[in-house]
Amino acid sequence: MGKQKGLLIVISAPSGTGKTTLCHMLLEEFPNMEFSISYTTRKPRPGELNGRDYFFVDRETFERMIEEGDFLEWAEVYGNLYGTSKSQVLKALEEGKDILLDIDTQGALQVKKNFPEAVLIFILPPSLKELERRLRKRGTDDEETIKKRLRIAREEIGKALEYDYIVVNDILEVAFERLRSIITAEKCRTDRLSGEIEKLVEDREIVELIRKA
Amino acid sequence: MGKQKGLLIVISAPSGTGKTTLCHMLLEEFPNMEFSISYTTRKPRPGELNGRDYFFVDRETFERMIEEGDFLEWAEVYGNLYGTSKSQVLKALEEGKDILLDIDTQGALQVKKNFPEAVLIFILPPSLKELERRLRKRGTDDEETIKKRLRIAREEIGKALEYDYIVVNDILEVAFERLRSIITAEKCRTDRLSGEIEKLVEDREIVELIRKA
Repeated sequence: MGKQKGLLIVISAPSGTGKTTLCHMLLEEFPNMEFSISYTTRKPRPGELNGRDYFFVDRETFERMIEEGDFLEWAEVYGNLYGTSKSQVLKALEEGKDILLDIDTQGALQVKKNFPEAVLIFILPPSLKELERRLRKRGTDDEETIKKRLRIAREEIGKALEYDYIVVNDILEVAFERLRSIITAEKCRTDRLSGEIEKLVEDREIVELIRKA
Repeated sequence: MGKQKGLLIVISAPSGTGKTTLCHMLLEEFPNMEFSISYTTRKPRPGELNGRDYFFVDRETFERMIEEGDFLEWAEVYGNLYGTSKSQVLKALEEGKDILLDIDTQGALQVKKNFPEAVLIFILPPSLKELERRLRKRGTDDEETIKKRLRIAREEIGKALEYDYIVVNDILEVAFERLRSIITAEKCRTDRLSGEIEKLVEDREIVELIRKA
């Protein structure tokens, strides 16, 4: 029957919403799902491996990839370039792997523009008060950083309606169950299946009946 | 927070695909889901109750409802009229109930036309051979009826691509899990939520941030 084409799943959420935990839970649940590995011009830090943490390339290579339109999304952060390679993602999807991208709203909307079949999911905190409480509880940020994160959170939440799905992370298990369902359901959508009915059902007669319709 | 608006779920499948079992499983799983009760001009049979099995009305009433555009779908079968009332379904959806419709492809496509927000799911048998085997095993139909059912199945399968989702019922639990996921996922779709963000998240500040975007 062959493998159905994979899904490109893009998840965004304000810092402190629980996105990292939810992404790890998804990778555990779907053995066929992989985290996307970004390209970057930044130098590897001790312990980082090329092809596992990032693809480390020089600026010239990165800029050539931009010119050739190979980035689904890219951005410059503190003088370093970061991007998601289209050809690399497409290859994985063709092999039937689901690819998970954990990126900010700006990157996510670039992906949607360049690859409309992507599934965009925005994770909301139950409230801004609760988000602030979670950020403080984490204890990793100083007051100024927390204020900055909350300001960025407000901006990002303003983009939620541009996503395909919104999931509120109030109770972790409920939010995870919804994410899991979104991925399972997307695989049953007719507009994704129509090109590859033969991967859905083995019976040639059924495939022919659907195809010729 | 109030209740989110309900979903209108339309399920079609060739006879023998396991649709009735799957629908009962869904009604068990989602306590907020109700089976749609049709209107009919046919006389009640012994044991049938008005408002539980059908709404029994006379032909004049039914024809007035047709004229007033109150049917999401209707059909004449062996001289009797059957139909799904739009006002009745809309009232239930507004109350936050999910409504399940188990109808044939012709009715389903009428519903989609009259109510594009409906979620149409087509259930496929794994093969026509398996469908025939299941129909024979049931032992309720004579040879002619089985042949007729298989002929209709072929016609109906040819309409599968017009549905929003396709689920193959090979292993019952897998098919059920997919149906369950489709319903959970649909409730997270942004285009369904955008009009009622305040029902998704209690925090007024988040609601305002999303609304004004």
